[in-house]
Amino acid sequence: MWAAIAAVLFVGSAVAAPRETRIPEAAIAAAGELRESALASDLGYRITESLTTEVGPRLAGSEADARAVKWAEAKFRELGFDKVWLEPVTFPKWERRSEQAEVLGEHRQPLNLTALGGSPAGKVEGEIVRFADLAALEAAPAGSLKGKIAFIDYRMERAKDGAGYGPGGRVRSRGPSAAIRAGASAYLMRSAGTDSHRNPHTGITRFDDGLTPIPSAALAAPDADQLARLTARGPVRVRVALDCGWDGEATSHNVIGEIRGKSKPEEVVVIGGHLDSWDLGTGAIDDGAGVGLTMAAGKLIGQSKLRPARSIRVIAFANEEQGLYGGKAYALKHDAQVKQHQIGAESDFGAGRIYAYSSSAPAHAQAADKQIAEALAPLGIEHTPGKGGPGPDISPFAARGLAWARLAQDGSDYFDYHHTPDDTLDKIDPKALAQNVAAYAVFAYLAASADGDFGSEAKQVTPPEE
Amino acid sequence: MWAAIAAVLFVGSAVAAPRETRIPEAAIAAAGELRESALASDLGYRITESLTTEVGPRLAGSEADARAVKWAEAKFRELGFDKVWLEPVTFPKWERRSEQAEVLGEHRQPLNLTALGGSPAGKVEGEIVRFADLAALEAAPAGSLKGKIAFIDYRMERAKDGAGYGPGGRVRSRGPSAAIRAGASAYLMRSAGTDSHRNPHTGITRFDDGLTPIPSAALAAPDADQLARLTARGPVRVRVALDCGWDGEATSHNVIGEIRGKSKPEEVVVIGGHLDSWDLGTGAIDDGAGVGLTMAAGKLIGQSKLRPARSIRVIAFANEEQGLYGGKAYALKHDAQVKQHQIGAESDFGAGRIYAYSSSAPAHAQAADKQIAEALAPLGIEHTPGKGGPGPDISPFAARGLAWARLAQDGSDYFDYHHTPDDTLDKIDPKALAQNVAAYAVFAYLAASADGDFGSEAKQVTPPEE
Repeated sequence: MWAAIAAVLFVGSAVAAPRETRIPEAAIAAAGELRESALASDLGYRITESLTTEVGPRLAGSEADARAVKWAEAKFRELGFDKVWLEPVTFPKWERRSEQAEVLGEHRQPLNLTALGGSPAGKVEGEIVRFADLAALEAAPAGSLKGKIAFIDYRMERAKDGAGYGPGGRVRSRGPSAAIRAGASAYLMRSAGTDSHRNPHTGITRFDDGLTPIPSAALAAPDADQLARLTARGPVRVRVALDCGWDGEATSHNVIGEIRGKSKPEEVVVIGGHLDSWDLGTGAIDDGAGVGLTMAAGKLIGQSKLRPARSIRVIAFANEEQGLYGGKAYALKHDAQVKQHQIGAESDFGAGRIYAYSSSAPAHAQAADKQIAEALAPLGIEHTPGKGGPGPDISPFAARGLAWARLAQDGSDYFDYHHTPDDTLDKIDPKALAQNVAAYAVFAYLAASADGDFGSEAKQVTPPEE
Repeated sequence: MWAAIAAVLFVGSAVAAPRETRIPEAAIAAAGELRESALASDLGYRITESLTTEVGPRLAGSEADARAVKWAEAKFRELGFDKVWLEPVTFPKWERRSEQAEVLGEHRQPLNLTALGGSPAGKVEGEIVRFADLAALEAAPAGSLKGKIAFIDYRMERAKDGAGYGPGGRVRSRGPSAAIRAGASAYLMRSAGTDSHRNPHTGITRFDDGLTPIPSAALAAPDADQLARLTARGPVRVRVALDCGWDGEATSHNVIGEIRGKSKPEEVVVIGGHLDSWDLGTGAIDDGAGVGLTMAAGKLIGQSKLRPARSIRVIAFANEEQGLYGGKAYALKHDAQVKQHQIGAESDFGAGRIYAYSSSAPAHAQAADKQIAEALAPLGIEHTPGKGGPGPDISPFAARGLAWARLAQDGSDYFDYHHTPDDTLDKIDPKALAQNVAAYAVFAYLAASADGDFGSEAKQVTPPEE
């Protein structure tokens, strides 16, 4: 009641501003209970365990990906979601069959590497030319690497918020095209990762239009060290043999489960993760955890005494890894319903403790945003207005006007495992995962219970790139 | 001078005891200088870097093993050792060609494993029967595992002194024979290791006489976790395909370098490590470090102002991994020279800081042993008389009467990497390695400078097993 009066007073002092959004006190109280029951629950971990154990690795478009879709549909039903459905997502299919590399000559020895997603197959032998970073390779004159293998030996930096992945990821996405421009016949990089284990990091790469793709792969950190030491001793020839490549189209699905809202069921708060994973690990931190924790949050909201006004829509997105296909498909399909989407948040940064909350809330929703932050504070979460951006699969819809929230996970060790064989369930701390479930449940519950919106408004945009 | 008088007095009070061994004060002073110069030197690290980089993995009997022998011979010469020679060592040759495994059926997914050394090749498909430990498998009735695959899911414990490797290693050495007795068609085990990375631990296994060997392999810890979770859900069929096996005989070499003693050059203090490694990593902690740090210790002693009385013999032993072949060959060849061997110590437990010193010194050498311990104390090394035993390649000769010393390395993380692809140079802390060099140099220098012996005395023994 106080909240409503305060809102009226506030709106009264602004000119032509939308009505201020506030969250009813009863919802705040219910969210507190939800938070405590989520912290005491292992449901998020059990769902993540189920996906990573029963399905295992699930490369987009693979047979295992199809099993993952069936798993997600069945799991939503088992958890008692009110509505469960699939939305098809079609994309080019890439396959990894085998990969091998070795140093030739007097220091001959194997190298541990993995093909980058999107790499063509090929057997290449050539002298290594080492570059300290992407800029150095981009500065190599055209044709200067003819018959040679480019190697970028850039070390990605560790950061709680994953800031090192910007420059690290660019070495993966842009390095191959730079290598081709310089005339190289293959491309190697030190993995975009922060560990020193013998597990290379894969990930999608792209080739600029008009270039003929070359075999492109990432070395495990100790193998990059080794190659750096060998090249410091003199010329080094390496043989790389990748068997992988694009093979037609595949259709997978965004799998969606909904907890029906009490009074405005046609309006939704979206939370989710992505269902596909790279093939090397079992996709526990990327992104079994995101799927598991948001499914659990939805389920816990569904069984709370006081249902929120709006529906909670949990989405297990298809094929995030190779180009946000699931997120783009969702944005296209629901283009006319931006306003019915109250707000969205995707978890796709592991299962470390959430330490910060922010959102795109405009002025008229900032009081409600603060209410959410206050309800999250007991979980050790700081309010950091204005920081960050939407999760990857949310971003195409956010570009069309969806309001978004960010629940920032501590990713200090995320890039030790990301896209490697080592992305397995043992890397998840069940207590940290429960804290994530609690945070997502509180956020989604309160956003769905608010009187007023968070600023979702259709924008005119060019369609997202394919 | 004081030392000599004290020795005479002490001997005078004992009945029929050997003359007490003491170390001259001048040698103690020189050892102090040696310790400080070793701590300031990166020579041990540079030698280890050279071996692991230039040769890389060096499975006993392989082409790389032969390169390692050439490397060691050349390195001894480059370091200025007074005498360098090879002693041949012949053994059966085992090869790894490929290895694969996968869960079949509704949860189909690959498993990451590695063949145990000595395993035969074979393609086997069968239902997994999980056992908590070796005793449980040994209790399985004969024939009860017919057509099935035995899986021991024992977790080795972490310990500074590696105590967990006793029970962990037995799962590897005895598990396959127990599986065969119960009728199994293949044997899987959780790796004998303390990490949770996707890097399985290999290591030699044996099959008891009269049993027909079966394919035997170790799963990486996350894969063992996965298999345990899957078997908890119901019957699990797995396909294992190993291509590996014994292939005739090979001859490698113990490579020996000697720093000539000043007054008793025919008497020697032996230090060393083993030159071979498993094939998965580059053998940095097992045992490039042992070779590197003892070569460096020898070199530093060789360039000290005051040469010790006795010679320092540094041995890079052949084929430790598959049955102490180098150590046994050395013991056989030098059988008549036990007494000329003052004492021996092998480093084969990584490159963690040395925290304890002990030896087999009998009563008449305990004062000298204490002098060595006092000279080691500034390195943070405790004197622990009576603890431990000789290093692996020293042990066959110790069984024939060689006095031995133990410089105990902190092995808390040794079994995170031991026998895995992850045994690479980056796992070595250069400062810890320098402390190891200092400790070995001080120990060897003082033992070689002593007035009197450490108790080496030929014993009648049955020849070491082949």
